[in-house]
Amino acid sequence: MKSKRIGSRTVKLQNKPTIISTASVVGPKEGEGPLKEYFDMILKDDLCGEKSWELAESKMVEIAMKSAVKKAGKKLEDVNYLLGGDLINQLLPASFAARELAIPFFGIYGACSTMAEGMCLSSMLVDGGFADLILSGTSSHYCTAERQFRFPLELGNQKPMTAQWTTTGAGSVLIAPNGIGPKVKYVTVGKVIDKGIDDGNNMGAAMAPAAIDTIYAYFNDTKDDPNSFDLIATGDLGKLGKQITEDLLKEKGIDISKVYTDCGVEIFDLEKQDVHCGGSGCGCSASVFAGYIYNKLIKKEFNKVMLVSTGALLSPTSTLQKQTIPCVAHAVVIVNEE
Amino acid sequence: MKSKRIGSRTVKLQNKPTIISTASVVGPKEGEGPLKEYFDMILKDDLCGEKSWELAESKMVEIAMKSAVKKAGKKLEDVNYLLGGDLINQLLPASFAARELAIPFFGIYGACSTMAEGMCLSSMLVDGGFADLILSGTSSHYCTAERQFRFPLELGNQKPMTAQWTTTGAGSVLIAPNGIGPKVKYVTVGKVIDKGIDDGNNMGAAMAPAAIDTIYAYFNDTKDDPNSFDLIATGDLGKLGKQITEDLLKEKGIDISKVYTDCGVEIFDLEKQDVHCGGSGCGCSASVFAGYIYNKLIKKEFNKVMLVSTGALLSPTSTLQKQTIPCVAHAVVIVNEE
Repeated sequence: MKSKRIGSRTVKLQNKPTIISTASVVGPKEGEGPLKEYFDMILKDDLCGEKSWELAESKMVEIAMKSAVKKAGKKLEDVNYLLGGDLINQLLPASFAARELAIPFFGIYGACSTMAEGMCLSSMLVDGGFADLILSGTSSHYCTAERQFRFPLELGNQKPMTAQWTTTGAGSVLIAPNGIGPKVKYVTVGKVIDKGIDDGNNMGAAMAPAAIDTIYAYFNDTKDDPNSFDLIATGDLGKLGKQITEDLLKEKGIDISKVYTDCGVEIFDLEKQDVHCGGSGCGCSASVFAGYIYNKLIKKEFNKVMLVSTGALLSPTSTLQKQTIPCVAHAVVIVNEE
Repeated sequence: MKSKRIGSRTVKLQNKPTIISTASVVGPKEGEGPLKEYFDMILKDDLCGEKSWELAESKMVEIAMKSAVKKAGKKLEDVNYLLGGDLINQLLPASFAARELAIPFFGIYGACSTMAEGMCLSSMLVDGGFADLILSGTSSHYCTAERQFRFPLELGNQKPMTAQWTTTGAGSVLIAPNGIGPKVKYVTVGKVIDKGIDDGNNMGAAMAPAAIDTIYAYFNDTKDDPNSFDLIATGDLGKLGKQITEDLLKEKGIDISKVYTDCGVEIFDLEKQDVHCGGSGCGCSASVFAGYIYNKLIKKEFNKVMLVSTGALLSPTSTLQKQTIPCVAHAVVIVNEE
């Protein structure tokens, strides 16, 4: 059946593309957090046996991708397309993982929205009959992100309380036209929104307007009821961005407060783990979805979930040139089919 | 009609997604090259009225994207998705252009293969009924690429003769489910191939194996005849990479020599413009396709063309870590329908 566009921004997938497996890998700190029981692999050493953090990040996403395929009882050769990307310049981790996996590769970049971006594209490509199996995943690493976007770790810089802690983690999903698992029912693709925030240590506030825009577009397009969801998870606005999103959506007539959380708030214990506003990085919503949320979907503890990964599209160059931060958020609605 | 996979790598699009318009913008040096008459806009100043080269590159791709929409008699609000990316860290030019265009945005990254990557994805999304109009484009700029990947321009570094000259240019395509214009008939998505080249000044040799792999996959999947094409254009292998590709494909039984060129060889006068092996950069195959090739297709001087944009997925970080260069190439076959 041909899928249809609903309203101005949302696509309803008619052929029930199915997330037949996922896999997650996280670093030691994430492995001490509240979601530790849900991850497939917790690294003892954040170098993951490699010589550099960048190669470690690549290895993490490669492991997460291979694991998802293996868990589904498939082979890498069965996979038609691989979608991946990350925060690192020229997508070093994803590109190097794609070389190992030898699957036709689409590099994608949505900063920390990459997980949902990949899921939107993969779901549509599977739904349209262009592939029988698509693997999509992303990663981030505290040490690669810090030295690229902020300061050398050796400086031991202090961060303001609005800052977030880049998750060391990777997550992947394997999507097929049918099979056992939750289905992707709707996708709402984000516009780039920039409300003028220029502080890279306040990403939650920068990204919240993009999350609001996309979530609002979904509900406006579908007339769906927020309380019909078991969970709406943004990722990764952190504590401050989450509050802004909830409050401003309420002002616009959409009350998600009863079912709403943020992957950056969930992955760490904000009281004890000294991460200020919470987790961030592509690997945050990737590992929280592939680990925690997918697990709850499979167990039917959740039956309807919206994942809204959020990304801040800044670069160190744009910051040096005194530019503000464009942001984007993509939404994927996943259901256990009635 | 549902599209079908042919062989192991190729998709045949059944619903004739149509390139209803294109637009191209190039810098002053490209505007003195052999293809000058085909570009929509030739900049007098490569700062394009902006304060930095990065913002200039963003403006160029924004202009190319807006022009394609305007030339088709459409409005930006009519466009369902925007696909864009470039060589610059965190896709600064594309992200900033997406902010101005306010169209739901998929950031993509395939280094200099980005034009064909965007066309592959856009064609499938339109073919599958997920969008009525998709705008896709990419850019590169000599000055942004040099200072990011190589040396500050002020150093006036000499380059070896195997090096290429990053094109200052942008190109965009607008794809619809029907209308007047050539149709995208096949797409073959590239695997990441790395034969061990680690010299960023010899990209042609690094990328040629990826181009060979993808072109071979297309002909192996479809059993098509190379001589049925009016043009097979890789972009941007340059003079050396072009020769390697032609020779090694011949060894594998595929002789494309009669119809083969490379966008990097076409965009400059290699004898007179001091560009060593030729042009490179995402904007090379983008502007050559959107300018020269599309023009010939519209005039029916070409009726069957394969564009194979090629990308080297290296980063300065991977180079410093003594890694080799993973490469990728995506093929799009465009026809005037019989």
